[in-house]
Amino acid sequence: MLSTENEILGVLEERYHVKSPLLLKGIGDDAAVIHPKGAEEDWLVTGDMLVENVDFRRGWSSPRELGCKSLCVNLSDLAAMGARPRGFTVSLALPGDLPESWLLSFYEGLSESGNSHGAMLVGGDLSRSEVIVISITLFGESLKRKVLYRGGGRAGDLLYVTGILGRSAAGLKLLEGGRVRPRSRIQREALQAHRAPQPRCKPGLWLAQCGMVSCMMDLSDGLSMDLPRMCKASGTGAEIYSSRLPVFPASLSWGCDPLDLAFHGGEDYELLFAVPKRKADTFEKSYPRNYPRITNIGRLCQGHEVVWVVEPGAGRRPLLEHGHDHFRPKSPRSR
Amino acid sequence: MLSTENEILGVLEERYHVKSPLLLKGIGDDAAVIHPKGAEEDWLVTGDMLVENVDFRRGWSSPRELGCKSLCVNLSDLAAMGARPRGFTVSLALPGDLPESWLLSFYEGLSESGNSHGAMLVGGDLSRSEVIVISITLFGESLKRKVLYRGGGRAGDLLYVTGILGRSAAGLKLLEGGRVRPRSRIQREALQAHRAPQPRCKPGLWLAQCGMVSCMMDLSDGLSMDLPRMCKASGTGAEIYSSRLPVFPASLSWGCDPLDLAFHGGEDYELLFAVPKRKADTFEKSYPRNYPRITNIGRLCQGHEVVWVVEPGAGRRPLLEHGHDHFRPKSPRSR
Repeated sequence: MLSTENEILGVLEERYHVKSPLLLKGIGDDAAVIHPKGAEEDWLVTGDMLVENVDFRRGWSSPRELGCKSLCVNLSDLAAMGARPRGFTVSLALPGDLPESWLLSFYEGLSESGNSHGAMLVGGDLSRSEVIVISITLFGESLKRKVLYRGGGRAGDLLYVTGILGRSAAGLKLLEGGRVRPRSRIQREALQAHRAPQPRCKPGLWLAQCGMVSCMMDLSDGLSMDLPRMCKASGTGAEIYSSRLPVFPASLSWGCDPLDLAFHGGEDYELLFAVPKRKADTFEKSYPRNYPRITNIGRLCQGHEVVWVVEPGAGRRPLLEHGHDHFRPKSPRSR
Repeated sequence: MLSTENEILGVLEERYHVKSPLLLKGIGDDAAVIHPKGAEEDWLVTGDMLVENVDFRRGWSSPRELGCKSLCVNLSDLAAMGARPRGFTVSLALPGDLPESWLLSFYEGLSESGNSHGAMLVGGDLSRSEVIVISITLFGESLKRKVLYRGGGRAGDLLYVTGILGRSAAGLKLLEGGRVRPRSRIQREALQAHRAPQPRCKPGLWLAQCGMVSCMMDLSDGLSMDLPRMCKASGTGAEIYSSRLPVFPASLSWGCDPLDLAFHGGEDYELLFAVPKRKADTFEKSYPRNYPRITNIGRLCQGHEVVWVVEPGAGRRPLLEHGHDHFRPKSPRSR
């Protein structure tokens, strides 16, 4: 039996830890960072694999949307380090009876998403399987060699997120309940967040350039899974003020708990980052108004990877890791 | 229904053809070639996907061997362009009941193979599936920016291959017949070629540096599938002298046709390359003696992608593409 993803990745990170003049960062962040000899910039590489009926369902998205989203999850990894996407490879395993039109629409979605963020399709591979498997590797370059890592945070730094948390998971709940077509504007918004998430490439680049952010990552498996990873890398704990979380309250109307989805939902592809307290005022004032809103949701604190939730009038309780893990039983996305 | 791999790749190559100062070569060669601004060298990226029961069987190789081989198929792509491997990402989809020891041995094989060729494991992703899916993306750098492409051949150039053809396919035939453990030295050799192919990294690098090779690729799907790709890229035809092919005659003893396997077997991971006729003598004399042997098997000729087989006393006949294609019925590896 396999351990959880976190445990497996922990073992690999320890066993295959290397640093060299070429490799500035290996396993253990959103992307690997290399520096080709002589190059003006650092180059970043990230990869994600999506499996049909595990990470997506064919009937829940158009092939074009799925193409966009497959690239998005990778674009989000580069956004999280402040890098500019440049190119990607796509390896696919496909059922032999898949309509060719499906495949071509999928590539259109990929290419559309790539074009709008500056990344070209450069190659890949094909194989055959019972279900669709999508493996994308995306590479990109830094700007002025300013790259943000997970591990730069210090106790006392304020924690921020972009956008809204739990909206994608609210969309997934609709799909799981059979609601593939929205019945209201708000359902459309939730489904859109799940099917066609927007990677935060521009905000990510700005955050890396502004010089006020100490660490950053993207939220793909849920705050309760991802924040402890940031804490582990930074050697800190964290406190979250639950009343401040930018939740998606409308999901109440289809039986969701907005706060629970904000903590554990996953697939938001928003950015989580920290800013030293003394810089926070300047930071908030200089953050561009036309970018997705940011919210101060808590702070890094002394402690060892433990995340505390502070609830108004109820003191603090430890946050349990109920986010997404492919190998843990009862993981939300494990269907 | 999907077309053949060649047809799909042809459509993608046409639709998504891009050239830019960054992208020197996109879809359509063994690897993509990029030039990071300011870098001393070109950087190459290649990816391969292997699916259990389609591209490999769990019972036919140890996890360590499978790790080595998974990286080898990528190393071979870089060898084919004369590049030096530097790093790789591994994305895996795994059945939840896979023993953890299997996974760790697989990574040991990967890492062992990577170390012996200068490539570090830098990242990847995990997902879940019914069968094992392995997706590796390997990157590497040129030496003195000398990169060999498929498309540099001219009519008249002599065609060479490294090593022996059809030996890996002969090993596969043994496995398909239930012979997982060899009964002779020669069976061991065939099984070894199939389970633990040796990428031709050093010869590939030498061939790119010597300045006498006009085009090169690796043989992964069989000569009958791969040579037409070289012809298409070079705008030529080709002639193969069947009596000269470096076949694996011992496979006769377990019912194989060595010539058929040399043409159509696949997974040899040998190099196929061309040398202008006037340079051939000098080339053959300067090729290092301690490298795998090379054999002149024919020549590029005028014509449109057609490959002719010249048989002693029997004139010439067109070579049919019976090599490996994931989506063509009755493809040899399609089990």
